[in-house]
Amino acid sequence: MAAILPLRALQMGIDTHQEPVVFIRADSEVCRAEGFIANTRILVCVQERSLIATLNVVTNEVLPARHIGFSRIAWERLALSGDEAVTVRHAPVLHSMSAVRKKMYGNTLSKREMNDIIADISQHRYSDMQIAAFLTACVERLDTGEVTALTQAMVDSGKRLTWPDRLQLVDKHCIGGIPGNRTTPIVVAIASAAGLIMAKTSSRAITSPAGTADTMEVLTRVHLDLADIQATVRRANACLAWGGAVNLSPADDMLIRIERALDIDGTGQMVASVLSKKIAAGSTHALIDIPVGPTAKVRSQHDAESMAHLFETVGRTLQLQVRCLITEGVEAIGYGIGPAQEAKDVLTVLQCQPGAPADLRERALFLTAHLLNMAGQGELPETTTLARELLQSGRAWAQFQRICEAQGGLKPIPEAVCSLQLGARRSGTLLAMDNRRLARLAKLAGAPNSPAAGLRLHAKLGQALAMGQPLFTLYADSQGELDYAADYYAHNHDLFMIGESP
Amino acid sequence: MAAILPLRALQMGIDTHQEPVVFIRADSEVCRAEGFIANTRILVCVQERSLIATLNVVTNEVLPARHIGFSRIAWERLALSGDEAVTVRHAPVLHSMSAVRKKMYGNTLSKREMNDIIADISQHRYSDMQIAAFLTACVERLDTGEVTALTQAMVDSGKRLTWPDRLQLVDKHCIGGIPGNRTTPIVVAIASAAGLIMAKTSSRAITSPAGTADTMEVLTRVHLDLADIQATVRRANACLAWGGAVNLSPADDMLIRIERALDIDGTGQMVASVLSKKIAAGSTHALIDIPVGPTAKVRSQHDAESMAHLFETVGRTLQLQVRCLITEGVEAIGYGIGPAQEAKDVLTVLQCQPGAPADLRERALFLTAHLLNMAGQGELPETTTLARELLQSGRAWAQFQRICEAQGGLKPIPEAVCSLQLGARRSGTLLAMDNRRLARLAKLAGAPNSPAAGLRLHAKLGQALAMGQPLFTLYADSQGELDYAADYYAHNHDLFMIGESP
Repeated sequence: MAAILPLRALQMGIDTHQEPVVFIRADSEVCRAEGFIANTRILVCVQERSLIATLNVVTNEVLPARHIGFSRIAWERLALSGDEAVTVRHAPVLHSMSAVRKKMYGNTLSKREMNDIIADISQHRYSDMQIAAFLTACVERLDTGEVTALTQAMVDSGKRLTWPDRLQLVDKHCIGGIPGNRTTPIVVAIASAAGLIMAKTSSRAITSPAGTADTMEVLTRVHLDLADIQATVRRANACLAWGGAVNLSPADDMLIRIERALDIDGTGQMVASVLSKKIAAGSTHALIDIPVGPTAKVRSQHDAESMAHLFETVGRTLQLQVRCLITEGVEAIGYGIGPAQEAKDVLTVLQCQPGAPADLRERALFLTAHLLNMAGQGELPETTTLARELLQSGRAWAQFQRICEAQGGLKPIPEAVCSLQLGARRSGTLLAMDNRRLARLAKLAGAPNSPAAGLRLHAKLGQALAMGQPLFTLYADSQGELDYAADYYAHNHDLFMIGESP
Repeated sequence: MAAILPLRALQMGIDTHQEPVVFIRADSEVCRAEGFIANTRILVCVQERSLIATLNVVTNEVLPARHIGFSRIAWERLALSGDEAVTVRHAPVLHSMSAVRKKMYGNTLSKREMNDIIADISQHRYSDMQIAAFLTACVERLDTGEVTALTQAMVDSGKRLTWPDRLQLVDKHCIGGIPGNRTTPIVVAIASAAGLIMAKTSSRAITSPAGTADTMEVLTRVHLDLADIQATVRRANACLAWGGAVNLSPADDMLIRIERALDIDGTGQMVASVLSKKIAAGSTHALIDIPVGPTAKVRSQHDAESMAHLFETVGRTLQLQVRCLITEGVEAIGYGIGPAQEAKDVLTVLQCQPGAPADLRERALFLTAHLLNMAGQGELPETTTLARELLQSGRAWAQFQRICEAQGGLKPIPEAVCSLQLGARRSGTLLAMDNRRLARLAKLAGAPNSPAAGLRLHAKLGQALAMGQPLFTLYADSQGELDYAADYYAHNHDLFMIGESP
């Protein structure tokens, strides 16, 4: 339909992260013929392959005549090797953006419209700005039917794990918001030691300093493909893999990247994200942990109950049995915040070390007991006893090692390059800490991109502190990030409330 | 606070449109020290000046060691000349983004929060993605207080025109949605011929194929600074300038750019955008034309009335007298769509040519009569007669020429490079046309970026057509764009409904 002037492909050596960018000279025939200006969305075709990219217009010096430059991700997505003939034209009208606009105006999207949006996103047709608009339009505005449609569309956008008929696969998920709450590796170890099958895929952090996948990556390889996951589960009854590596819900990974940049995490979007990965992994049962507290992700019992209801309703419609547990989310769990620091806590619990954080252990046991109960292993008092016995006997630790061995071996935990210990600025009792600002502190130190970055608490709520007594240690991989976090703390001392106990 | 390693400034020769991008080598000390990865938002400082930019990480070949590359807009905003010492660090946390998130969750923003957001946007601190999130969160979700706060914040973000005390300044605005509805130049010519003062600043197109500024730019210079505007008004009682050139509401210009990319135009945002420019221009009275029709921007009388109420309420709070007129918006006005084609219609009306579009003329007279009435020039029957007399006597045309002369002279209207005439595909009566798809057609042909691009209708509603009789002509500046528009029409014939009259 449009004038086609072939250009030659050239890698620019420019990394634009996940948004593909191509570079064309301002004086090129194609810019004049097609009326391109900077930031035009264009369709780039190489043989049978095509990609929608954002255009950057360049001067002569940057690019030889008759060439088109590609950013790293554009180059990779088109699987280029260099000098291929490339044609470009205006990107076609994205019909699904009409549905996004419809949602902005508060209308309800049909199953078909939700499908079209997710298909376009997973085919990389949306710009980051368009994804941002879709996510924003959905925050707290999706009804149950839309969340169900979104969940199904996400499942359909990716690959699925298949298992023998009628195999019972259980899963466990925490919606997050509580720093250090890294129960999943412990729950998976105990539950699979009891014989449950858990093909556990976890996400990386969205707005937190670490996701389970970030923490597990410190301990072993989590970048497993579908065949690796199936082999690991055959060998060890369970795995602890990164979900993003297996394309189980590729659209979701793109949504999560933009949610992270905007620091948002809407309920409907989150329910769809969680359940789509469970369904794509072939799970039959899922236990969802919803912590509630004044600075947690969910602040009130009412909100937690409506979220639980949404999880259970959507799950039921899509043939997944879901149980939600509303748990206390007042303070950070364990001592570590950030991938490596949380991994340390996980190991001390599994190894039943004397200094292991009791709160992390007890919460993991509570969740495991429910999971065993859901899976028909007995009433709660029995499954509670069973879970504790599996942990204390060392069988859970042996099972955890078996899983890590099957994934590629247990790795030593990395140490941070820089650290800074900070003490209490007055004496008294530690009365409260702000989960959100604590998470932000760990993120400013570099978590989760730097796995060793984060912080380690030296006190828990209710503890008496002398002035100057160590309160926490900051860890970072660069002095710049350490300074950045320390500066934030200097302006936010009150994230720890120390005073006389009431 | 952070480690500072100076780099040398280099212009990259890359145009990234309005979003500033800087380029740093992956192997640079600063990337390692600060933990930068691609797409990190960083603060770039040169002496006393600073800018938040998006980072692209580059390989050695692209940039010499110890240098930092700048995209065109980043280079311009920092007023660089080359080789300046540049320091970079993580961009500070944007506190106003918390308010954007609050809005996403449906909460009401305070005056202070709205101010902080608009201040950050006008200081270029938001990424395009963050602006997209703000705009999306506001679509149909701003209450009257928030629209008032947004309007005031936009006024405060920019410069203001000042006039002698108690000078009555009138303004006129159409909310758009009807292709070809270019009454403003005609209204300004007639009303200022009657002695009214109109420092008219207009916007460029947001989602339409032409804004008044785009159309006027075809006829004369519209890029006037504040002094030019004041001089023009002194000489000719009125001006017809582009608002974006005078920084009257710089945040609004940035919002409009992203609205255009996302093809959205929310009511609250629009009311604030319109009124902020009137207030900043020093207007005391504003007449707002709200066309209503099945494919117009406003589809029902009820929506038009609530929009009118919002305009009038916000105006009253901010000491601007606003009158809204709800007009018929069923079909395109005039024959031309796109800057040059609309300019032709404007001239034929002002010159009282025999082929001038009667609908455009009558609508302009109706609006002018209301404007004269608002300004105390008499009751409506008298002002209606006065307006028609000023047009028919040639005084309005003389006045229009005076305005253009004062702005830099009347220019010849550009002709498009390519054109394509399309005929009726069946015989019958032209029963309906879809304004939105008609606008899209003109945009695909290149309007408003190519001023000569667009289309010219050869039929109006109710007209009898023989098969093959010319229906409209497409105009474009490149074959690619002409093909692109023709292809869209090939798939959207039904945007013209031709059949037997009922």
